Amino acid sequence: MRELRVALLGQGFMGKAHSNAFAQVGHFYDTPIRVRRTLLCGRDADSLQVMASRWGWEETSTDWRTAIDRKDIDLVDVALPNHLHAEVAIAAARAGKIVLCEKPLALTVADADAMVDAAQRVPTMVWYNYRRVPAIAFAAQLIKDGRLGTIFHYDAAYRQQWGPDRSRDGTWKMDPAQAGSGVADDLLTHLLDTALYLNGPVVEGIALRKTFVPGRTIDDAFLAQVKFANGSVGQFQATRFGIGCRNANSFQIHGSGGMLRFNLERLNHLEFADANDPAVDQGTRDILVTDMKHPVFPHFWRPAHIIGYEHTFIAALGEFLHALDTGAEFHPDFRDGLAVQKILAALQASSSSGHWTTVAN
Amino acid sequence: MRELRVALLGQGFMGKAHSNAFAQVGHFYDTPIRVRRTLLCGRDADSLQVMASRWGWEETSTDWRTAIDRKDIDLVDVALPNHLHAEVAIAAARAGKIVLCEKPLALTVADADAMVDAAQRVPTMVWYNYRRVPAIAFAAQLIKDGRLGTIFHYDAAYRQQWGPDRSRDGTWKMDPAQAGSGVADDLLTHLLDTALYLNGPVVEGIALRKTFVPGRTIDDAFLAQVKFANGSVGQFQATRFGIGCRNANSFQIHGSGGMLRFNLERLNHLEFADANDPAVDQGTRDILVTDMKHPVFPHFWRPAHIIGYEHTFIAALGEFLHALDTGAEFHPDFRDGLAVQKILAALQASSSSGHWTTVAN
Amino acid sequence: MRELRVALLGQGFMGKAHSNAFAQVGHFYDTPIRVRRTLLCGRDADSLQVMASRWGWEETSTDWRTAIDRKDIDLVDVALPNHLHAEVAIAAARAGKIVLCEKPLALTVADADAMVDAAQRVPTMVWYNYRRVPAIAFAAQLIKDGRLGTIFHYDAAYRQQWGPDRSRDGTWKMDPAQAGSGVADDLLTHLLDTALYLNGPVVEGIALRKTFVPGRTIDDAFLAQVKFANGSVGQFQATRFGIGCRNANSFQIHGSGGMLRFNLERLNHLEFADANDPAVDQGTRDILVTDMKHPVFPHFWRPAHIIGYEHTFIAALGEFLHALDTGAEFHPDFRDGLAVQKILAALQASSSSGHWTTVAN
Amino acid sequence: MRELRVALLGQGFMGKAHSNAFAQVGHFYDTPIRVRRTLLCGRDADSLQVMASRWGWEETSTDWRTAIDRKDIDLVDVALPNHLHAEVAIAAARAGKIVLCEKPLALTVADADAMVDAAQRVPTMVWYNYRRVPAIAFAAQLIKDGRLGTIFHYDAAYRQQWGPDRSRDGTWKMDPAQAGSGVADDLLTHLLDTALYLNGPVVEGIALRKTFVPGRTIDDAFLAQVKFANGSVGQFQATRFGIGCRNANSFQIHGSGGMLRFNLERLNHLEFADANDPAVDQGTRDILVTDMKHPVFPHFWRPAHIIGYEHTFIAALGEFLHALDTGAEFHPDFRDGLAVQKILAALQASSSSGHWTTVAN
Repeated sequence: MRELRVALLGQGFMGKAHSNAFAQVGHFYDTPIRVRRTLLCGRDADSLQVMASRWGWEETSTDWRTAIDRKDIDLVDVALPNHLHAEVAIAAARAGKIVLCEKPLALTVADADAMVDAAQRVPTMVWYNYRRVPAIAFAAQLIKDGRLGTIFHYDAAYRQQWGPDRSRDGTWKMDPAQAGSGVADDLLTHLLDTALYLNGPVVEGIALRKTFVPGRTIDDAFLAQVKFANGSVGQFQATRFGIGCRNANSFQIHGSGGMLRFNLERLNHLEFADANDPAVDQGTRDILVTDMKHPVFPHFWRPAHIIGYEHTFIAALGEFLHALDTGAEFHPDFRDGLAVQKILAALQASSSSGHWTTVAN
Repeated sequence: MRELRVALLGQGFMGKAHSNAFAQVGHFYDTPIRVRRTLLCGRDADSLQVMASRWGWEETSTDWRTAIDRKDIDLVDVALPNHLHAEVAIAAARAGKIVLCEKPLALTVADADAMVDAAQRVPTMVWYNYRRVPAIAFAAQLIKDGRLGTIFHYDAAYRQQWGPDRSRDGTWKMDPAQAGSGVADDLLTHLLDTALYLNGPVVEGIALRKTFVPGRTIDDAFLAQVKFANGSVGQFQATRFGIGCRNANSFQIHGSGGMLRFNLERLNHLEFADANDPAVDQGTRDILVTDMKHPVFPHFWRPAHIIGYEHTFIAALGEFLHALDTGAEFHPDFRDGLAVQKILAALQASSSSGHWTTVAN
Repeated sequence: MRELRVALLGQGFMGKAHSNAFAQVGHFYDTPIRVRRTLLCGRDADSLQVMASRWGWEETSTDWRTAIDRKDIDLVDVALPNHLHAEVAIAAARAGKIVLCEKPLALTVADADAMVDAAQRVPTMVWYNYRRVPAIAFAAQLIKDGRLGTIFHYDAAYRQQWGPDRSRDGTWKMDPAQAGSGVADDLLTHLLDTALYLNGPVVEGIALRKTFVPGRTIDDAFLAQVKFANGSVGQFQATRFGIGCRNANSFQIHGSGGMLRFNLERLNHLEFADANDPAVDQGTRDILVTDMKHPVFPHFWRPAHIIGYEHTFIAALGEFLHALDTGAEFHPDFRDGLAVQKILAALQASSSSGHWTTVAN
Repeated sequence: MRELRVALLGQGFMGKAHSNAFAQVGHFYDTPIRVRRTLLCGRDADSLQVMASRWGWEETSTDWRTAIDRKDIDLVDVALPNHLHAEVAIAAARAGKIVLCEKPLALTVADADAMVDAAQRVPTMVWYNYRRVPAIAFAAQLIKDGRLGTIFHYDAAYRQQWGPDRSRDGTWKMDPAQAGSGVADDLLTHLLDTALYLNGPVVEGIALRKTFVPGRTIDDAFLAQVKFANGSVGQFQATRFGIGCRNANSFQIHGSGGMLRFNLERLNHLEFADANDPAVDQGTRDILVTDMKHPVFPHFWRPAHIIGYEHTFIAALGEFLHALDTGAEFHPDFRDGLAVQKILAALQASSSSGHWTTVAN
């Protein structure tokens, strides 16, 4: 059994989600790689100690460079605010570490490019964890198997409702210098990665960004219309003013073979209308994606004993370790993260110019 | 084209629903029988005139016997309070009229027996209109085609919420002498007719009736457990204290081939889980029963242009006229109404004795 | 009681829906105006006779000018293919008739303008019947009462699935000369009228039209992004390639006070999330819009005895007659129909130019 | 920080769920008690080793008495087949251990009584984990706060679909000697504990058990009608022949204040119809029970980042540890487990005698 000594950089919400993944992956994934929670880095020494103790991190440091410099660290996991991703990940990759990085990969395409470049010889992962929602993985499988036929429409929206809450204005997510943008970097990137996963490249788009709160410098909402390389068309929408929706990361796909519909608030479910059923039998099926033959789910519990948000992180890590062990290809890696940045950049440019803008590929 | 001169007895809510059916049947059903709204009978002369004028009834009478005595009446439709059904329907049948009767057929099995006896030579219909809900007719077809396989469970509930409203205590529905009972005669009979239609005879049952409002002499809720002749078991529930449910006439059926689920508040929908689908594809389908190949619906509008409550009356009448014209068998007739009374009687006896009680057949 | 002698022009699906409205309005709406089905006009003499007989039209004509020329016609109802609306409606209005017209009002803004002009002194109605869906009328009331607060997002989609069916290629709906366009004139106009009703004027938009079937000259799908005068932003989508959706005319609105969601396939329901509820109690309510205090519904049946597609036509006509009788204002009239055309024209221009386009007001 | 040395007895599915709870509780619950996974007992030495290694158990034993005899074990957790609960739990309690026991508590009321008796001086818990589903805990809170008013109906069903699968006939769950009964001990007991939690004591009941597969000696389905001490009435149903339902542990409650509805397949949701809302606003709310003010949930993730099946075990344990630490009362303990057995015994007796049977209290 091979040991993998991990350094986690970040002590926020993502730090907790990643800690849980490192703690749980060995319980649910059968891997010869033993994950050791070696080092936790963060800037607040007091809370860092509490977190390390609670989540079983052996040591702590308030300087992320410790993780790079120590020879006994095999893997660096970057769960810092967006603007730090590039510098840290590049340093880690250059030091020969395996690098995991929270999404979005970077603030700019140039940075993302440099990250891909620096990490050419090390395994990488971007935490677009929703690819491991069983329902989304199953959607990918149905599409790959041709069950949806020719895709006509791919629409997606990510709606949250905390935008009007002024008490969060001071956080890094509301600061363009640290977050890059508002909902575009935060929520739209999730939609884009899932779209790339399920429906392939975007060719061009026209976007509109909107700030509802006077004085804010970030986008509260971001809308886009796009054309995909496969001939389908789509609408995207990301907003923190989707009052009534809490975490509604959703998509709806129509193809000659039927419809798929998903909403993260019901992450164990995939809705599927099969156009190949006899007409009188057709109806949207509410599939509880918890069968032993479904993807991802069988690692956890028995059929219909549902899983939650955290399991998508465990599963992403589990599959990454499996790829490490077997040499299998793994996605999403830094190149996939870069692909998201390129669409994002085109849409952001479009939202400034007001023109249809081609995605650089 | 043959003319059918109709006398409608009753000026309440059912009088309105039946008037609408007589007015509309020729628009949606292609029949050589021309329905003529000849006579409307009711006790309140003033409102009777208004209703006749609004719904196009040619004449009115405050004495229901006029309908029996007039030679130019071909069909008598009894939409009077329950306790009047037997006397009026028997008189009409003896006078050679075609007889339609609101549900429940009668207050007692003896009365229902006498009605069947009197009507042996005339066509009859009981207005268990929900057999013509497209979703219920389609459920019957799926079951008949063996899609549900061996039935294990047949459960049904009819929940309304107006029970706590004391302002309705003076109406005939709250008077045992006129209504027979509370929810048993009113709501449970609908459940029983649908059960007979979909799942066949009931062998025995144990019931519990409950009056929540002190001083009331009718049952506010009625619960039963039954064994069906086909080996399945079931629970029935009828209540006017199902707060939160407005008109939730519902059933859920489980068989070796899958599940069917229905709720009258969504009458255009039938939920179907097909156990013969591959495991990963299984999920409850929400079928909008509005296809041109579905039963009942094609008489009305185009696919997915949904219909409502009133259409079940139009369709029942439309199919009855078709049977009149072609000599085809029609259900539910008075015999079907009698079958409901026999189960009802056994369950009511059980609710008094506290014992399992066999249904007389 | 005043008599209104009606001439209906059109013998297709809309002809049937309008015939039903004329036949039923007096049953459900208490009006001193007696509607008389005087004349039915259409080009196919044989089927016209059958239709007139079935729906009780007293006379027929294969020349629509008969309706204009006859002095004993008070109201002309235009249910002809789109390209005929302007000529016929203008002639009828000039002859002093009350004019009802199917949607869209016209093929061009110029035609619509001319229609408004010609009809300045006669009462008019455009059959944007969905304003009378009780759930939509109730949504309008909630918004007017300030329950949604400041509107942030207004999104709407109308998805049907018959686009791939080549057997319908010969119908007038697939011919730009008769239909104007594909889904834009047919489905998008419904979305635009409802948006105007619920959320007010559109300022500018950017659109994309798509034809999936090679060789077709109409748009199979139409997407748009818009900015509303009230500061909200929105996405529209109309498609006949929304496989899995049959008649899914839907909207979703987010405001500071909550969310509203609607889908015509469930027309008796309105979903409402009230952001003013205590946080722990918040959830999307599925309101069955069938209470005696809800708009529209009380004209028909008792609570939770649901209505269907046809009732929206009856209700539109019922309210129009009420306005005729009382002199009350009525919407949507030709001016409202013109407002839809102006947005449509801007969006269609945008879909050709690829530029954001201002709506002429 | 106090250390709690745990011995887990059982290496099946429950062994895994409990292991996870012991491993995770310290991550999500802030407690001064440090849980140490000291000893894992099971009969199959080979798989025991694998399980211990995967879940971090320090030692193993193939003899459960080791756990009783070792002085350094503070807590014994019994996750063995039902027939072993009484003997093991009594031995552990007599040795002064804290005792946790899987449900049902015992095979008979006499055994359960003896367990309560033996455990009078040690803290106990029965793993009726569903009390810690946030939605169920929130339902309890709403009821306690009087939001449901007077309860009229309490109905519950637990439907699974694996009954027809003959390949499971050899497992202990299908053997009356080890399991006690079929669905009654397995599924009905969950319904009864939740009913006791939400609606209080059952006074009497009439039940029906059914075996669908010839030759089987266990019950495949179990139906009951009951009267509660609070005047409400209810129906229970437990079945493994609920084809189309995978893990549908559900209830529906109607009171003067509204309705509550729950289904374990959607465990993050509670449906609530508030009868105190204005009539036009009433509708069933789909509450995502993931707010920071909801019970249970705030220990885990951020709002709307949903949790799954396993979290109910973690939460039960977390609250038990909190009670241990603070001396607070904890439920469900062995007395609560005994209360379930008493209702179960009455219903099983009724299903044999065919008579209404009083629950011994």
